[in-house]
Amino acid sequence: MTVHTRYRYELALCIPTHPPIPASPTRRPDLRLLAAGCSDSNSSSHSNPPPPPPHHHHHRPTFSSSSSSSQPPSTPTSSEPLAMPEEDITKYLRQSHARVFEHNRAWVTEQTKKDPEFFVKLSAGQKPEYLWIGCSDSRIPAEQITGLQPGEAFIHRNIANLVNNIDLNVMSVIQYAVRHLEVKHIIVCGHYGCGGVKAAMTPQDLGILNPWLRNIRDVYRQHSEELDAIPDESARYNRLVELNVIEQCRNVIKSAAVQQSYSKNKYPIVHGWVFGLDDGLLKDLNIGFEDMLAEIQKIYNLEDS
Amino acid sequence: MTVHTRYRYELALCIPTHPPIPASPTRRPDLRLLAAGCSDSNSSSHSNPPPPPPHHHHHRPTFSSSSSSSQPPSTPTSSEPLAMPEEDITKYLRQSHARVFEHNRAWVTEQTKKDPEFFVKLSAGQKPEYLWIGCSDSRIPAEQITGLQPGEAFIHRNIANLVNNIDLNVMSVIQYAVRHLEVKHIIVCGHYGCGGVKAAMTPQDLGILNPWLRNIRDVYRQHSEELDAIPDESARYNRLVELNVIEQCRNVIKSAAVQQSYSKNKYPIVHGWVFGLDDGLLKDLNIGFEDMLAEIQKIYNLEDS
Repeated sequence: MTVHTRYRYELALCIPTHPPIPASPTRRPDLRLLAAGCSDSNSSSHSNPPPPPPHHHHHRPTFSSSSSSSQPPSTPTSSEPLAMPEEDITKYLRQSHARVFEHNRAWVTEQTKKDPEFFVKLSAGQKPEYLWIGCSDSRIPAEQITGLQPGEAFIHRNIANLVNNIDLNVMSVIQYAVRHLEVKHIIVCGHYGCGGVKAAMTPQDLGILNPWLRNIRDVYRQHSEELDAIPDESARYNRLVELNVIEQCRNVIKSAAVQQSYSKNKYPIVHGWVFGLDDGLLKDLNIGFEDMLAEIQKIYNLEDS
Repeated sequence: MTVHTRYRYELALCIPTHPPIPASPTRRPDLRLLAAGCSDSNSSSHSNPPPPPPHHHHHRPTFSSSSSSSQPPSTPTSSEPLAMPEEDITKYLRQSHARVFEHNRAWVTEQTKKDPEFFVKLSAGQKPEYLWIGCSDSRIPAEQITGLQPGEAFIHRNIANLVNNIDLNVMSVIQYAVRHLEVKHIIVCGHYGCGGVKAAMTPQDLGILNPWLRNIRDVYRQHSEELDAIPDESARYNRLVELNVIEQCRNVIKSAAVQQSYSKNKYPIVHGWVFGLDDGLLKDLNIGFEDMLAEIQKIYNLEDS
């Protein structure tokens, strides 16, 4: 059995018979934490490659039953420049590109069948009532887990759902959503087992990620007394995930756009939620928006009255 | 008929009988362009409020047939401090918050029914093959239009899908996706009728949005000869949307992470796509990744060989 035939594709819609590209050797072993998400706290001491992707994706390549599901069948060594022949890589990349367009056409057909006017309405404009600030993690499709339809949620996603004062990217999103779209709710949603939060606490130089993730250490510093008192590492990380969400809510509330709109309109309300990957449920941290706003305004008042 | 009974809700799952909050008076009329998306180029001269949201959302409040669908039934005047009594606003906000949790529970039930192991697999880790850099626009749910499942696409969305050299937010996302998740494809996806692109070209002070949107004027400047030669305004904007995507692809390719990974692994491939709101289709701009990379490396070479 060659390495190629050890793979199969589950559905005919996607690429018929071509192997996925095994990940190249992990050059920074501890960084697998970032990809592994909420793996247990001992995983950083393992020397195995990261786990394969979950197998519930109907349209993605999976290993056949003849391969161990806990380990890719072909792990390239560092002496191999490429994990498979270049022409195979090229073919795989072409096919994994093409399947998205097939999915897209299928989606258009399905939407049009359900509602022939769907795209006419979609192109008429947007008036979303929710702004979602969430993690880039591929396992948290904001619209699906909230059941929000196209047109309902303005979306910003970054690593570890951070809101930083001088980040023009997220601040433009907030300003636009509040002042021009007049959203009614702003949701900061983190998730338990956040690899970004875990990586932020790992004593390792992550290059350009250092300053970004440093914001999470700032959260730790603000709440070190509470966090240091939690003996279980996994529980401590999960509490840090929650505290990170709460601090990012504060950062949203510090903005002039939110304070001024709330003073005038009684919205938006800022919410802190956490998504549980192991049960799919959203948990409301009940941050107490009005009290938090009042507390913030002791120092950050921008009501402009 | 009171203003309250002029509204209804389509499905029992959501809030039974409470009116949505009309948008407050538009204080910056031209900014409606941002929300209106691909409305025709004459819309900036209208003084009407923005169009109501599209009515295809199953779980969101819609106006009843007794109201004009082209205009909200109750447009508050600027002398009214609030669009409706505060207790009604509070009630509406509480209900529109609660419905998301109902949707979430329904989603969990549905997923578990389809696959009892769904969340066990989801919490095992992520190994996405795609990085999606798209617009925050609420009408472009990346996972739905691409058919990509939870775990398949790492997501960053901002206003007008911009990639800026000094934006630590998007640069952290790229670095992490390429070096640690080892994505195979990076997709920059714009959309025709992008309100952000249109607003960027509007001669108006948008506050903190100015410097963010200025990147789009930079794209215009780079391609002014081509753009100025397009007489139809709508066609010109749509070409600017395409050129913006192409320039953001260049910005992705300028990064060390992409250049070094491609040199070593032959991936990721960078793609420029545009989503059509009026037909739901993804259009591949066929940017010619290899040629673009070679051209970029004449000046921006970071291969580190």
